[in-house]
Amino acid sequence: MDYKTRTRVAAILVDDKIAAGTEVTILGLVRTRRVGKEVAFLEINDGSCMANIQGVIDPPDKFEILEEIQTGAAVRMKGELVASPGGGQKYELKVTDLEMVGSAGTDYPLQKKRHSFEFLREIAHLRPRTNTFGAVNRIRSKLAYGIHQFYQERGFYYIHTPLISASDCEGAGEMFRVTTFDLPQVPTVDGKVDWDKDFFAAEAYLAVSGQLEGELLATALGDIYTFGPTFRAENSNTSRHASEFWMIEPEMAWAELDDNMDLAEEFLKYLLTYVFDKCGDEMDFFSKWVDKELRQTLESVIESEFVRLPYTEAIAELEKSKDSFEFPVKWGIDMQSEHERWLTEKRFKKPVIVYDYPEEIKAFYMRVNDDGKTVRAMDVLVPRVGEIIGGSQREERLDILQERMTKLGMADDFDKYQWYFDIRKYGSCPHSGFGLGFERAIMYITGMTNIRDVISFPRVPRWAKF
Amino acid sequence: MDYKTRTRVAAILVDDKIAAGTEVTILGLVRTRRVGKEVAFLEINDGSCMANIQGVIDPPDKFEILEEIQTGAAVRMKGELVASPGGGQKYELKVTDLEMVGSAGTDYPLQKKRHSFEFLREIAHLRPRTNTFGAVNRIRSKLAYGIHQFYQERGFYYIHTPLISASDCEGAGEMFRVTTFDLPQVPTVDGKVDWDKDFFAAEAYLAVSGQLEGELLATALGDIYTFGPTFRAENSNTSRHASEFWMIEPEMAWAELDDNMDLAEEFLKYLLTYVFDKCGDEMDFFSKWVDKELRQTLESVIESEFVRLPYTEAIAELEKSKDSFEFPVKWGIDMQSEHERWLTEKRFKKPVIVYDYPEEIKAFYMRVNDDGKTVRAMDVLVPRVGEIIGGSQREERLDILQERMTKLGMADDFDKYQWYFDIRKYGSCPHSGFGLGFERAIMYITGMTNIRDVISFPRVPRWAKF
Repeated sequence: MDYKTRTRVAAILVDDKIAAGTEVTILGLVRTRRVGKEVAFLEINDGSCMANIQGVIDPPDKFEILEEIQTGAAVRMKGELVASPGGGQKYELKVTDLEMVGSAGTDYPLQKKRHSFEFLREIAHLRPRTNTFGAVNRIRSKLAYGIHQFYQERGFYYIHTPLISASDCEGAGEMFRVTTFDLPQVPTVDGKVDWDKDFFAAEAYLAVSGQLEGELLATALGDIYTFGPTFRAENSNTSRHASEFWMIEPEMAWAELDDNMDLAEEFLKYLLTYVFDKCGDEMDFFSKWVDKELRQTLESVIESEFVRLPYTEAIAELEKSKDSFEFPVKWGIDMQSEHERWLTEKRFKKPVIVYDYPEEIKAFYMRVNDDGKTVRAMDVLVPRVGEIIGGSQREERLDILQERMTKLGMADDFDKYQWYFDIRKYGSCPHSGFGLGFERAIMYITGMTNIRDVISFPRVPRWAKF
Repeated sequence: MDYKTRTRVAAILVDDKIAAGTEVTILGLVRTRRVGKEVAFLEINDGSCMANIQGVIDPPDKFEILEEIQTGAAVRMKGELVASPGGGQKYELKVTDLEMVGSAGTDYPLQKKRHSFEFLREIAHLRPRTNTFGAVNRIRSKLAYGIHQFYQERGFYYIHTPLISASDCEGAGEMFRVTTFDLPQVPTVDGKVDWDKDFFAAEAYLAVSGQLEGELLATALGDIYTFGPTFRAENSNTSRHASEFWMIEPEMAWAELDDNMDLAEEFLKYLLTYVFDKCGDEMDFFSKWVDKELRQTLESVIESEFVRLPYTEAIAELEKSKDSFEFPVKWGIDMQSEHERWLTEKRFKKPVIVYDYPEEIKAFYMRVNDDGKTVRAMDVLVPRVGEIIGGSQREERLDILQERMTKLGMADDFDKYQWYFDIRKYGSCPHSGFGLGFERAIMYITGMTNIRDVISFPRVPRWAKF
């Protein structure tokens, strides 16, 4: 085969690594085929980049096989790289050798036309072969790598927190049960499930966050980050919810809320800069076909200094506003998307970090402020999306943590949290962290509006196919 | 707080970035405390590297707080960096300022002595604070990054395959069921489970591999790799099996078995070189305390050219051997660990790639050779471990794939594999890939012999704590 001698289209058309006159072998799928009287053209995409490379066949009857090469066929095409006379790409291929490796038959579902995203979701196994989903996949990959680079360059250690857990620690959100019971037969004792007979000898669930374990590892290693899958069994059939998604959760020992804000702002700007730098053609594509204001919106974020606004002041701003809101504004509310977007899009016209939220609306592990009624939570709001990052300084004082948990009705769960208490009992230190949903970040960066279109195989209520 | 002004110990003692005479703030946990008559010493570890930094307190009664600072306490220590007169580290700290941020009390479980790995598994939430588990975690992180670097530099795209799946595609291995049913109540219709009422409106499981989806994305994007968690519900309580582990699965379109072998060999050598380069102190630690032959074994792998041996010849070698084996050798057997280790440790004394295995013992998706009785499978065997990588060229010919599946009794499952068939129906091309278990790789590289000791929170039968 030609693996060792093949040339990726990206090396020719993106990296500009191959000189005109070079003989190259291209391996890929046919996007279009045009056979004229004097010359024939085959546009090939090999997935390495947005661009197709055009093979020029002159005369068009040079290869008998050409007649059978339809859109979608896998071909091997060899020839000399020459400057392209047309206005498209810099180079094209003067084809000297052509082989059809895999036919696409006559019923290939991806013909040369625009398909609806709804249609493409039904053929999720073929949609990575389209421009849009090829681009989404390449951005996913580069962005993931950029995330690792960002943290590794800063001395953070990458950790893997457990996905299956027998201690429902978050309490929040509905979780998926994990079992090896052969349903509907479930062993019971006195009418209750005999969990001792299950695989883990206990009830087990899929984790909704790696934060608590992340805190533990941060206090040992300094700074850590997670980047792994997360599961939510919420029955939300919206364009922004998936049952399985990836999340990035950095956690810094010896860091307070200000440090956390610094990191979040630096991180977001890094990612946007990175993606324009590494995925220029893909970003051009999304800016042209998906959201015409995309580039401008993101570039203004890179250049802006994020506003940092206490929740109390944010509420005051909203109360002063002449705009009307569906949900009434008053101190103590959990802000709705309309409020968040007003702050970032209308009032400040740039990213806003709201912090020091009322303790009633935030999780048990957030550090209580001296005022006794707010906690050191922060949400990063960005134009076009609203909240994109949520985080906090964690409560490192064992007595105050337990007091707050008792107030929240969690006193019966203390035995489950023994290990979480221990890291406060022994050498506790201030620490902070946040979470960024990877798919939400990709939606934000590409302008794609449905989470089902930024994951290869989305899992949502009543759908876990492929 | 001191986040912005703190100095990581790694910057001083590993990267040698700070000059003597600089004033630095160190934040970390006390490893040892020695109070003499004329001077006191505090050894601090901040998790950023193996080494502790020593704080020198002269006179010892300079800080009242010193009396309360026990092993395990979290402290802030400020002072001038000076050349260390002792034979240990290059620098120590002349402490001018000392604060105890978090006491460790008097019952801290990690006192200065060697603890058994069994004991440390019971306090998995504290063990990352020990030398061994700090080192394991740092190697995990760097190695993970090295894996991304290897593939990204070679133009492979990182993909996320689904963890929850309604199609039990692998067939192999026992799987965990995922459900939101409130056990023991399971809705039934005619005595059978009414899966339509479950979250995904179908039976759903945790994936045992991302390979099949990886094949699909490789044929669209060229070269891809996965790096994500994988689940096995096998009831194996061995030192090498975990129910949840991470796996790396590269897949190359337009690649045959030779290319696959090239990639596997290059990949393994890269990882070993990388870890010596990036984790020198950790590797010294494992070579000294865990396996004295570690460095030599791994270095010889880096320098060796892997043997490539057809299964048939491997069996012939084993049959010629004068050594006796527990399991008898003959063509057709699934080689046992004793056979694999004999080949790599005794016969060739270096890594061996065995390929072209009998079709009866290999999975349905492996490409059938022209001899009709072997398939294009390969296993990479390394000294001290045996099989570390398994892979194959995939069957890209739809008719032959379906024929083989029928022979294997999978004809009733064809509807589940429709999408897998489709990528062969439309523009099929040769492709190959392999899998490397991340924890197995870490065990191999560190010399650690129990998989429970290379994952922060291992999941095994009857154990899913923390």
